[in-house]
Amino acid sequence: MRMSVGDYLLKRLGEIGAHYLFGVPGDYNLWFLEQAERSNHIEFVGCCNELNAAYAADGSARICGISALVTTYGVGELSAIGAVAGAYAEGVPIVCIIGAPPLGAMEGHALVHHTLGDGNFVNMLNCHREFSVAQARIEPANARYEIDRVLRCCWLKKRPVYLQLPSDVAATIIEAGDASLELCPPISDPTQLSIAIEQIVNRVADANAPAILLDGDVGRFGLTQSLIRFIQTHSIPFATLPPAKALIDETHDLYLGTYRGGGSSPETRDAVEAADCLVCVGVRFTDTSTGFFSHQLQLNQLVCIRAFDVMIGTMYLSAVVGHELLNGLIGAVPPRPKRILPPRAKPRVRRVKSGQVLTQESFWQRMQHFIRINDIVLTDVGTCLAGVAGLEMPKGVTVIGQPLWAATGYGLPALLGTLLEAPSRRQILFIGDGAFQATAQEISTILGRGLRAIIFLINNYGYTIERLILGGASAGYNNVNQWRYAEAISFFDTNGRASSYRVGTEGELEAALTEASRSESLVLIEVVMNRMDAPKALVHFARKCAEFNYLQGPAAPGIASINLAGW
Amino acid sequence: MRMSVGDYLLKRLGEIGAHYLFGVPGDYNLWFLEQAERSNHIEFVGCCNELNAAYAADGSARICGISALVTTYGVGELSAIGAVAGAYAEGVPIVCIIGAPPLGAMEGHALVHHTLGDGNFVNMLNCHREFSVAQARIEPANARYEIDRVLRCCWLKKRPVYLQLPSDVAATIIEAGDASLELCPPISDPTQLSIAIEQIVNRVADANAPAILLDGDVGRFGLTQSLIRFIQTHSIPFATLPPAKALIDETHDLYLGTYRGGGSSPETRDAVEAADCLVCVGVRFTDTSTGFFSHQLQLNQLVCIRAFDVMIGTMYLSAVVGHELLNGLIGAVPPRPKRILPPRAKPRVRRVKSGQVLTQESFWQRMQHFIRINDIVLTDVGTCLAGVAGLEMPKGVTVIGQPLWAATGYGLPALLGTLLEAPSRRQILFIGDGAFQATAQEISTILGRGLRAIIFLINNYGYTIERLILGGASAGYNNVNQWRYAEAISFFDTNGRASSYRVGTEGELEAALTEASRSESLVLIEVVMNRMDAPKALVHFARKCAEFNYLQGPAAPGIASINLAGW
Repeated sequence: MRMSVGDYLLKRLGEIGAHYLFGVPGDYNLWFLEQAERSNHIEFVGCCNELNAAYAADGSARICGISALVTTYGVGELSAIGAVAGAYAEGVPIVCIIGAPPLGAMEGHALVHHTLGDGNFVNMLNCHREFSVAQARIEPANARYEIDRVLRCCWLKKRPVYLQLPSDVAATIIEAGDASLELCPPISDPTQLSIAIEQIVNRVADANAPAILLDGDVGRFGLTQSLIRFIQTHSIPFATLPPAKALIDETHDLYLGTYRGGGSSPETRDAVEAADCLVCVGVRFTDTSTGFFSHQLQLNQLVCIRAFDVMIGTMYLSAVVGHELLNGLIGAVPPRPKRILPPRAKPRVRRVKSGQVLTQESFWQRMQHFIRINDIVLTDVGTCLAGVAGLEMPKGVTVIGQPLWAATGYGLPALLGTLLEAPSRRQILFIGDGAFQATAQEISTILGRGLRAIIFLINNYGYTIERLILGGASAGYNNVNQWRYAEAISFFDTNGRASSYRVGTEGELEAALTEASRSESLVLIEVVMNRMDAPKALVHFARKCAEFNYLQGPAAPGIASINLAGW
Repeated sequence: MRMSVGDYLLKRLGEIGAHYLFGVPGDYNLWFLEQAERSNHIEFVGCCNELNAAYAADGSARICGISALVTTYGVGELSAIGAVAGAYAEGVPIVCIIGAPPLGAMEGHALVHHTLGDGNFVNMLNCHREFSVAQARIEPANARYEIDRVLRCCWLKKRPVYLQLPSDVAATIIEAGDASLELCPPISDPTQLSIAIEQIVNRVADANAPAILLDGDVGRFGLTQSLIRFIQTHSIPFATLPPAKALIDETHDLYLGTYRGGGSSPETRDAVEAADCLVCVGVRFTDTSTGFFSHQLQLNQLVCIRAFDVMIGTMYLSAVVGHELLNGLIGAVPPRPKRILPPRAKPRVRRVKSGQVLTQESFWQRMQHFIRINDIVLTDVGTCLAGVAGLEMPKGVTVIGQPLWAATGYGLPALLGTLLEAPSRRQILFIGDGAFQATAQEISTILGRGLRAIIFLINNYGYTIERLILGGASAGYNNVNQWRYAEAISFFDTNGRASSYRVGTEGELEAALTEASRSESLVLIEVVMNRMDAPKALVHFARKCAEFNYLQGPAAPGIASINLAGW
């Protein structure tokens, strides 16, 4: 079958499961956008700027499994690169498609706009190479196999990939073949797999108090269902690292809570650190996941299962596929007696005191009972991330945030992506005022498409997380300009469907929640709180962060060994 | 003298002439921000996001000569990198200071937040290396000489530089010496300088119709005054490439107009292309400067003077400093008879027809008589850049835009920078609706500081420049969401000092201009125009652009030779 390069790429994007192409038009990508407009495979969603478009693609990929971004060369792609790097850090697959100057202009080192004007056409590719698992400049001759190779890598590694599509190449006709994209899923080496199963079976069988610790990669690489079966079959209690929040039902009777090193509850910490066999699945021991490396784990008691390899104590096996290993373990480990954990305290229902000024504590206590089964909960960084982390999520809730990359302003454009992918689920965003200001304009795309969500905008007059780390309430640089946030709806939404509230007391919040629950449109609730008020966990985190960044010299103990422990 | 690394850097920034440090707080740069708050050398200006902060630094540097940016590691710097690359493309010196993780964490490959979580600490530096002329990671041991080296490069090359300041290093005490920063300005090699002078003198003396063509580097490298003296002493007519718009008084009697290859007026084109000696100063023949390489110049009739080297026909001399060469030529060339050019047509004053709907033509005709001596005129890309390019600027006007990098949304945050540097000059920004949406939030920083400007927001319902290139009025992807732009003031400005107008007719525009001329605060004028209306020059440009991007194959003639001609 013959078709244009652009149409071939769109067809492949559809085959790999992408629904949307987020981006911004630019003169080098217009032909491809024309092709996208006519495509049955994918829908173009124009955003206000490229950074926001990439965050939206990130949100979309978190629900759908993969997404796509289109920008123009240079100016466009570099505006997006921070979000693409964030997707790499957080393990989110995005296909980045860059409309580039005509191939001949690039090969001829022409001095064209959107470049440095020096004939250099490798600098953009060099940058993106740092934040993608495969890259290609598409030429007519290599289009078919390069597109296939790069998309396959995206699917396999669950990380961004980068395609330069020269403006003139988009329209070029190629022989495209008839076959769909072959994904070539990896299999385990049989010998390595049986060694791994045997070793882990022995460790689990010999253990008095085994435990499981899981991280975000479990969800990304589709290990969740196998892991749940493993947990249930063998009655092994499990804890989550913060990025795996709510990946497995937090009301499960074997759930130990969130483990974050010294920042954990004593019960969770004891159960994890005292485990004589700790099966880690998809884990990374990062600073934010471990209370700044305050985790105390013994390497020789760890089994670290990852998507495509495994480490058992100090033995490393490079060709063991995670889901095959988990499935193999389910039958191979002799079933353990059913373990009953002491029941955890249920979150307290607090009586509303109408006139009482809202605090972080009372707000998040209320949110505990506002969030419902199957909600999608998005959170930006700072007080919001800490607040969400402290809630016990009802069954089926999906939590989306950036615990590692931690970009201010991620949440709002990401919401655009999640709303498009799952319009029938209730979606709630928690975002601070500083974060809202970073990417505020994207609310207009959400409003323009008539999408429905509840946005809690925590207005504490600036960057409270930074104030807690250094400078306190007096540091002027942590203040942001005041906006009339509740007017955002009127300013950005000419359809006039959405509504907004500004609340400062428990009673006002209650009234707004009632309206939000009834509304069929977007609702923005500005929650005014004190500038130094924060969830307790954030105060603890900020103190550890200040120690790490500012008091701990280069020769401080422990730093050199972090990477090994981080495996 | 002993002082902390952070204080040393701030002192050096002051010595090199920076007034402002634009940026966003993040946990890795807080100590440096504390130092900046206490500094007498420089003032921190917090922005809504890092991209905007870098554009603001760009605007500041265009007026002041140099500026500074501070972000946090990873998330922050990558959000800014598009604007930093733009500053590289356009030749704007910005000192980028990145608050990085503690030095020990970087050397120990720690898995910390704002990184990819893989222990890689060279990826950010690798990216910035592509868009800066010097880079360093500051350590206590190298702080003094690395800071000096990097700042010197910024000053010399007029392009961005990159400094990673680990969080713990900012506070480290070093021996700083007592001397101010030595800039080491380069001098010409005497032999090369005299060869260059002799060669150029002969060429100019032998020429019947010499002409001068200047570009943006003339302003950046401080060659303007020498060049004006050269022009006047020898009565040689001069044309400007578009980036040099208004660098020399456009009412000068030797001014030939703007040269843009086939896009020039016939008189300007003839004078430049028929010159038998064309002295080019600081030129780059880019696509946007030459009507997509439609310039017809003979390499052997060119003299190309640059900041630190010169090319005379095919002879290249690497150590000839531009201002020394120009000064040398002033006395050395035998004065030519005074040349009188035919007077150019004066821009027509058009009678206002109150009820007449505004068009691009009538709007820009009106702007011709609204812009005054010594105004600073900023323009974003698209219709605005084309409109501004078509005006004859009164004496002393400074024009600021990005004719090469052409980032949508540059103008508004750049205005923050120019306003801070020159609050006593009247400043006017022209920006389209698509561009305004990209970086709109930064108007809150302008309003929060009570700065005064006139903003013309051209609302033509999307990206008209892209519509003209491909897709026309029907392409949905070139539309943007409608906002209530005139409400921007109320939404972003809680001080309530500024005002806004929405105009669609000549009479409404006239009334708004009267108010704007009287106002002591910021005035936003939303100018509603037809989505396919555009300055004629833009229609021509878009047609050439479409040919270049979409009809011209890789083997088209001329492409391979562009780089040489582009010298």
